[in-house]
Amino acid sequence: MPYHPSHLTAFAFAAVLTLSMALAGPAHAETTAFPDAIESDPARLGWMVGSPPPPDRILRFEDGSYFRFPAMRWSVSHFRQLMPTINVSRGTAAAGRLRQALRDDIDDVTFLPMGSDRPMSWRDALLENYTDGIIVLHKGRVVYERYFGVLTREGQHGVMSVTKTFVGTLAAMMVADGELDPERKVEEYVPELARSAFGNATVRQLMDMTTGIRFSEDYADPNADVWAHAAAGNPLPKPADYQGPRSYYEFLQTVQPEGTHGEAFHYRTANTDALGWVLARVSGRSIAQLLSEKIWRKLGAEQDAYMSVDSTGTPFAGGGLNMSLRDLARFGEMIRQDGRYNGQQIIPKAAIADIRQGGSKEAFSKAGYALLAGWSYRNMWWVTHNPHGAFMARGVHGQALYIDPVAEMVIARFASHPVATNAANDPTSLPAYQAVAAYLMGRKQVTPEK
Amino acid sequence: MPYHPSHLTAFAFAAVLTLSMALAGPAHAETTAFPDAIESDPARLGWMVGSPPPPDRILRFEDGSYFRFPAMRWSVSHFRQLMPTINVSRGTAAAGRLRQALRDDIDDVTFLPMGSDRPMSWRDALLENYTDGIIVLHKGRVVYERYFGVLTREGQHGVMSVTKTFVGTLAAMMVADGELDPERKVEEYVPELARSAFGNATVRQLMDMTTGIRFSEDYADPNADVWAHAAAGNPLPKPADYQGPRSYYEFLQTVQPEGTHGEAFHYRTANTDALGWVLARVSGRSIAQLLSEKIWRKLGAEQDAYMSVDSTGTPFAGGGLNMSLRDLARFGEMIRQDGRYNGQQIIPKAAIADIRQGGSKEAFSKAGYALLAGWSYRNMWWVTHNPHGAFMARGVHGQALYIDPVAEMVIARFASHPVATNAANDPTSLPAYQAVAAYLMGRKQVTPEK
Repeated sequence: MPYHPSHLTAFAFAAVLTLSMALAGPAHAETTAFPDAIESDPARLGWMVGSPPPPDRILRFEDGSYFRFPAMRWSVSHFRQLMPTINVSRGTAAAGRLRQALRDDIDDVTFLPMGSDRPMSWRDALLENYTDGIIVLHKGRVVYERYFGVLTREGQHGVMSVTKTFVGTLAAMMVADGELDPERKVEEYVPELARSAFGNATVRQLMDMTTGIRFSEDYADPNADVWAHAAAGNPLPKPADYQGPRSYYEFLQTVQPEGTHGEAFHYRTANTDALGWVLARVSGRSIAQLLSEKIWRKLGAEQDAYMSVDSTGTPFAGGGLNMSLRDLARFGEMIRQDGRYNGQQIIPKAAIADIRQGGSKEAFSKAGYALLAGWSYRNMWWVTHNPHGAFMARGVHGQALYIDPVAEMVIARFASHPVATNAANDPTSLPAYQAVAAYLMGRKQVTPEK
Repeated sequence: MPYHPSHLTAFAFAAVLTLSMALAGPAHAETTAFPDAIESDPARLGWMVGSPPPPDRILRFEDGSYFRFPAMRWSVSHFRQLMPTINVSRGTAAAGRLRQALRDDIDDVTFLPMGSDRPMSWRDALLENYTDGIIVLHKGRVVYERYFGVLTREGQHGVMSVTKTFVGTLAAMMVADGELDPERKVEEYVPELARSAFGNATVRQLMDMTTGIRFSEDYADPNADVWAHAAAGNPLPKPADYQGPRSYYEFLQTVQPEGTHGEAFHYRTANTDALGWVLARVSGRSIAQLLSEKIWRKLGAEQDAYMSVDSTGTPFAGGGLNMSLRDLARFGEMIRQDGRYNGQQIIPKAAIADIRQGGSKEAFSKAGYALLAGWSYRNMWWVTHNPHGAFMARGVHGQALYIDPVAEMVIARFASHPVATNAANDPTSLPAYQAVAAYLMGRKQVTPEK
């Protein structure tokens, strides 16, 4: 019997995080009025400040208060203070140097938001998108870096579904290294999934999210699968009358088929959790350990990263990763440089090539993302197929890693946009990235015409 | 009404951590038989390994399984994976170098355990004490370093009540800097404590634990104060019928007087939590922030440290700190060098002098520590007053930082001894430290006579 979210309020609310991370469908932004970026600034609102903080400024994991807007703007930079986590160690060597060549003139770059005829400046777009931190690298140098609210250079922020991109990249590395066969069935690696919808899907179908699984994200439906996923992964004690799956792995075994594997792109968080299980089983290591050993220790990261875990210690592969903004930028720069960075080949070139070539545009088009026409999805990367061959990692509430090979540009952004779908911030993000790319390439900045 | 621990089993068990940290009374070791260090090795027992781990190898915060021996031997190196925590940032600079001059011959140094006539080797004492990691610095160089079980150089371990020493040191720094007046009453800094037993105590009495407060640690008594302390600080959701204090700060306000302030040393964890509140109120910063700003960022630490927090985000000042072994050693070396380390004066010399001179031996003697005759307690440091002027930080289950100024030696040790009082490991620890000190000073190693 599926877990009914209205049954035990506190527990269900605490599941909001996982839910929200899972949200990335093609829905358009609601037009609900939210306080703007200045009014909702978490530093201004003083969450969790004081000894003790005022009662109305205390945020708790258990009652869901931490993830209601605008409190969520504090929480995305403090997940560790709210829930158990596992480290992604950087090791103890000195961090790699990020050279700077700051260009504050980027603030005045303008662009036309999608569907709008009013030019907007880069500076204004940062507020419009509730940006918490943004960094632009050009030819490997920091040309722009800003932090807002409670995020600092030394802070860490949830990357939400950008986590999926890290997991997909790990899988692509293991494929390139011959450790993982993408054409084998999932059940061959994880027999426990044989009777679930994942069992007869291929690893490649997981990696590209073309499985045919039932995973409803209809929040109005108390029997929606997404509630069961969230409840299963919630690390808090389960209510006494709870009957559902008690971990991510238990949940995955309950997922039912819907449609046919390999036909269409369906963005479903559960695919990444299943892929995470495959990688853990193949390697004998958790996703957190894999990330540390294969990427983080080699990247010259300046901080450890961390992941949220369920009650059995399994990291949330679909959305539980947190890191510093500069380290996300380092990861992007490493990808841009075909996997070679910090003096070593971290990711096989073949894996990078496979990411950049993208997936099936036809399969992608069936998902109906109105703002992402012509894109594809490969190894859990979003590939624009634009003239610059740009590709992205995307996470709910505006997390982004945007790599533009032609402009030799990498943008990493953390945000806490009130609307839980990127369709709400894409119109003022994607054209802004393209405008800065053109600007950095030396094209004359022209105020866009109507 | 005090919270009754047997009322809601899961919640009460989860409180065990806090309880155990609080335990450091003069009680003698029980003679209960426990599996030895090899049999109880957490790596050998395979806790939390696998995808998923076998059911009998999964440890949970909520049911207390994580802190039963021998599972506790895994948990002390993985608190972060079990509960919410707050970072103590090292910043992002390169770590300070710890030079090495290894002396493996230390393994063969022998000593006479207290109350025994059979010599024991240093090597054997490590197993006897369920050591998880130990490092010896001589003249600032690493002469000995070992890790056991699941702890590695890059891991982190709970320092338990060594946390108190960090908080006491912060207080001594703020006194030396004129930011805190040790002779003022606690209620002058924290008016909320006016009606508790702490209100009319001086800050100095908190710092030296000579307050007269009622804080029973009788585990057989379900109304013992220690249960209420643990339940209040537990970050898990409170049971629906829970009536007690809901945070460390709320608990502190309920503490009742017993005896007279300033007469005798009484080791009570609540004193440190109250001191933490004073420091937070005076500085406008949490203990975690203070540790980061005043010590960790300056020390050349190679890893961030972290602290457990209650449900209002207050770090557990009495015992919630975790760090790497090498960073604990760096802290000890900085203290040994009169506060100057890593190219800067981190702690005022006056504060170090005040620690080293110790507290009242008379007040200390009233606490009845049979194994620690002639010692005193000052600024939450344990001062031996032995011929070398050695002084220590001590945490339950065998955590130790031992500083011997005459031998120019610092020893940092993490352990997971099954018995929750240091009286169980002191007999094979304190004489061992003294023997290594003598050995490093070049005294001829002689097998101790009966």
